[in-house]
Amino acid sequence: SDNFFLLAGPCAIEGEDMALRIAEKVLGITDKLNIPYIFKGSFKKANRSRIDSFTGIGDEKALRILRKVSETFDIPTVTDIHEVSDAKMAAAYVDVLQIPAFLVRQTDLVVAAAQTGKVVNLKKGQFMSPEAMQHAVQKVKDSGSDKTWITDRGTMFGYQDMIVDFRGIPTMKEYAPVVLDVTHSLQQPNQSEGVTGGRPEMISTIARAGIATGADGLFIETHFDPTNAKSDGANMLDLSRLEKLLTDLTAIRKVIKSL
Amino acid sequence: SDNFFLLAGPCAIEGEDMALRIAEKVLGITDKLNIPYIFKGSFKKANRSRIDSFTGIGDEKALRILRKVSETFDIPTVTDIHEVSDAKMAAAYVDVLQIPAFLVRQTDLVVAAAQTGKVVNLKKGQFMSPEAMQHAVQKVKDSGSDKTWITDRGTMFGYQDMIVDFRGIPTMKEYAPVVLDVTHSLQQPNQSEGVTGGRPEMISTIARAGIATGADGLFIETHFDPTNAKSDGANMLDLSRLEKLLTDLTAIRKVIKSL
Amino acid sequence: SDNFFLLAGPCAIEGEDMALRIAEKVLGITDKLNIPYIFKGSFKKANRSRIDSFTGIGDEKALRILRKVSETFDIPTVTDIHEVSDAKMAAAYVDVLQIPAFLVRQTDLVVAAAQTGKVVNLKKGQFMSPEAMQHAVQKVKDSGSDKTWITDRGTMFGYQDMIVDFRGIPTMKEYAPVVLDVTHSLQQPNQSEGVTGGRPEMISTIARAGIATGADGLFIETHFDPTNAKSDGANMLDLSRLEKLLTDLTAIRKVIKSL
Amino acid sequence: SDNFFLLAGPCAIEGEDMALRIAEKVLGITDKLNIPYIFKGSFKKANRSRIDSFTGIGDEKALRILRKVSETFDIPTVTDIHEVSDAKMAAAYVDVLQIPAFLVRQTDLVVAAAQTGKVVNLKKGQFMSPEAMQHAVQKVKDSGSDKTWITDRGTMFGYQDMIVDFRGIPTMKEYAPVVLDVTHSLQQPNQSEGVTGGRPEMISTIARAGIATGADGLFIETHFDPTNAKSDGANMLDLSRLEKLLTDLTAIRKVIKSL
Repeated sequence: SDNFFLLAGPCAIEGEDMALRIAEKVLGITDKLNIPYIFKGSFKKANRSRIDSFTGIGDEKALRILRKVSETFDIPTVTDIHEVSDAKMAAAYVDVLQIPAFLVRQTDLVVAAAQTGKVVNLKKGQFMSPEAMQHAVQKVKDSGSDKTWITDRGTMFGYQDMIVDFRGIPTMKEYAPVVLDVTHSLQQPNQSEGVTGGRPEMISTIARAGIATGADGLFIETHFDPTNAKSDGANMLDLSRLEKLLTDLTAIRKVIKSL
Repeated sequence: SDNFFLLAGPCAIEGEDMALRIAEKVLGITDKLNIPYIFKGSFKKANRSRIDSFTGIGDEKALRILRKVSETFDIPTVTDIHEVSDAKMAAAYVDVLQIPAFLVRQTDLVVAAAQTGKVVNLKKGQFMSPEAMQHAVQKVKDSGSDKTWITDRGTMFGYQDMIVDFRGIPTMKEYAPVVLDVTHSLQQPNQSEGVTGGRPEMISTIARAGIATGADGLFIETHFDPTNAKSDGANMLDLSRLEKLLTDLTAIRKVIKSL
Repeated sequence: SDNFFLLAGPCAIEGEDMALRIAEKVLGITDKLNIPYIFKGSFKKANRSRIDSFTGIGDEKALRILRKVSETFDIPTVTDIHEVSDAKMAAAYVDVLQIPAFLVRQTDLVVAAAQTGKVVNLKKGQFMSPEAMQHAVQKVKDSGSDKTWITDRGTMFGYQDMIVDFRGIPTMKEYAPVVLDVTHSLQQPNQSEGVTGGRPEMISTIARAGIATGADGLFIETHFDPTNAKSDGANMLDLSRLEKLLTDLTAIRKVIKSL
Repeated sequence: SDNFFLLAGPCAIEGEDMALRIAEKVLGITDKLNIPYIFKGSFKKANRSRIDSFTGIGDEKALRILRKVSETFDIPTVTDIHEVSDAKMAAAYVDVLQIPAFLVRQTDLVVAAAQTGKVVNLKKGQFMSPEAMQHAVQKVKDSGSDKTWITDRGTMFGYQDMIVDFRGIPTMKEYAPVVLDVTHSLQQPNQSEGVTGGRPEMISTIARAGIATGADGLFIETHFDPTNAKSDGANMLDLSRLEKLLTDLTAIRKVIKSL
């Protein structure tokens, strides 16, 4: 397909039923639009601001749900890992291992992910320049793998805002395929109540700019009911809005590929 | 026209011949693409980093050249003003008065510009949020005019870099038509040698993101020979690359308007 | 005196009585502490966020009050200027002409100030690096004057916060004596209501760091009743707290000079 | 002692001899100045920009050297940990477990450190506000420990610079004792060659501001020969300059405590 690819799903795997329902709904849309779809779900949330935030339903249980989604719909899956020991475990269940932005400078973790032979999706640290991501990519290559993506999830702008530097997309495409994470790019961290805020009304704006500047893929967290999701509700896209969004982006992608 | 409009021309008016030649060349392209064209040229550069930088050929002389361009090609013109006394003077020659980003908080200047009845093009300060521009627009309205545009020219990011926050485009469109200045958005200020640097290879990236996110107009400084231009050479677009750029952007605009 | 010098007074000259009372109160403290004192007051506020903000009591009237303060207490005075024509006018009344941060890149204004022969107090733009201030200082020197100070008033940090980079103090001391403006360094601009906020509880922290890193002078806006001041109430120091603050800073200064 | 305390030592433990020599040298100075001294050394560098950077001499070997230093000079030691499994291992050898800035949002790691009963030194993420550190401190408390420090190591300012926000010192002192890391606060990350740069000439400036604003402790990486150190040479203090630095800071501390 000449279209962009999509990593989408809920922030965290909350249960099998919700995972299957979200995957089915997204796949119905992406099939129509010829968008390669990778189901996304975290099996564990390791970096919550507060210790009382939701962190998951159990590692193996969540990973088994990811496999179930993959087998049910014949689609690849992606999840994020946080410690070296997660790499092998998660690789037994999913197709893409994602390195969280906070952890992308942890060499051991990147190497462990690369050594599984799975695709390694490196999130750009919100404290890193696009150019600095070449060193993270090089660590994957030096581990004997050439399967790596870079995902931009915005850059710190003052204490309580993130900004997307779209110059980073062509810059990082020189190192690896580039995904734009429209969900986390719109976070507003360090809020006084200890819960990250967001600006979901800007999802379409950020996604359009991403496709227009050549992003190879998009990352979107989506949920039937973002307000009641157990994590990251502030920025997840309501599933009912996904089809219109992807249809518009497909039209932009088509003209971009024709230039 | 459903297309975006274009403010383009050299950074500074260096002479009549160069002004006419640039206008003619740009107009040849914009006519073909159905892009409303406003010729841009500064009659004075008032805020150079160093006192020995080029500041202009003489105020009235430069303004007369702007009028000559307007009459020769039957197109509107825009120039920037720096003091209250400039407003009336420049308004006698041009159609749009531009308030430089550094000066957009100077109430007297904004009011003086508004009172001429000309369109006031307010550049967003590189130290201002998109939301803060509503107060600048309000000053124009309170002066009895509703003819105002906002131009984004990037936001300070560290000492030596600018970044464009594309969330600002839909935000500022609620206040007035929004122009994206692709030339100054790519500046890299505060360089050690006292001359502002730039990243002109990113012009296409920034412009595409701007059109994709709904910018109403573009601002592009262009020159037959940017390297030898008397100011801002670091970011001006070589005129030979303008047609391809505008053709691509017109295609993106068309699909955006259709969504 | 080996002590730092102090620029202090109300944000704007609201009337003769308040000016004289503030000067008298401050002078009573600075005399005791051997702090050279320059009375500060703006004769006009030209860059308010909103057109309905207070801008002054009349230029000449305010300037005459500044002269009255100077003559009454035999102390120098400082005020800020905004247009070339202000330079000569203000120079007839005060000893130090201050270039506002937003305007420090306006060459004509800096040159006009320098040509009066008065001390030129250049405020570092919140969008400028400490190193870039050498070019502003050079413009004063190229105008035939060597009487210049640099005042740091913080640097933009995200849209709604300012930060003081204390590396800038030794850096800028290589170009000219450096003043730290503790009032404006604590501003929080671009607030949604169009009125700049602040963090006055941090005045002592910022001032101590300034003296400890070698600042030659301090700039403090102060008022008997900051909450009811006609501008910048958010950050002005209550006069009742000034003596303790300056006493502490004098003690730090003494040890710093002894190292 | 009323003096600040000091965490100091080489960036990485390169060998027993260098560790003992550095500890002895520092202790000679701190004893004289009545500065409580904690020897610092990393047993592993896990987050180097490039895979070919030095990462350590072997975990257990380095940890045994830390214990040797502790026993030889009867001083406490601190080292940083990167994975949950490091916590218990390192706690068997050292007195303070340090959570690196990149990892301070990893709940499992913070909890594991807290559960050892050792002091947990939480480095403020360069992407975190001072206020957000209260949530990290709370995770230690919720794990049943009240032994925690916060260390500020600067905040991201653009892609290639760090800045210290001294407002953070009084802010974070409300949560726990605050240490200022003068070494890493002066880093200049994301340099094009993949090696972090620095501004060691600013160590004294940053340290003075820290003590003046109430920091409880300082963190300084130091080495007999920084240029030839195996990591972080760009910012380590030459040991020959330590005594003068600490003597000056002790004088400032004394006056600060007297205010």
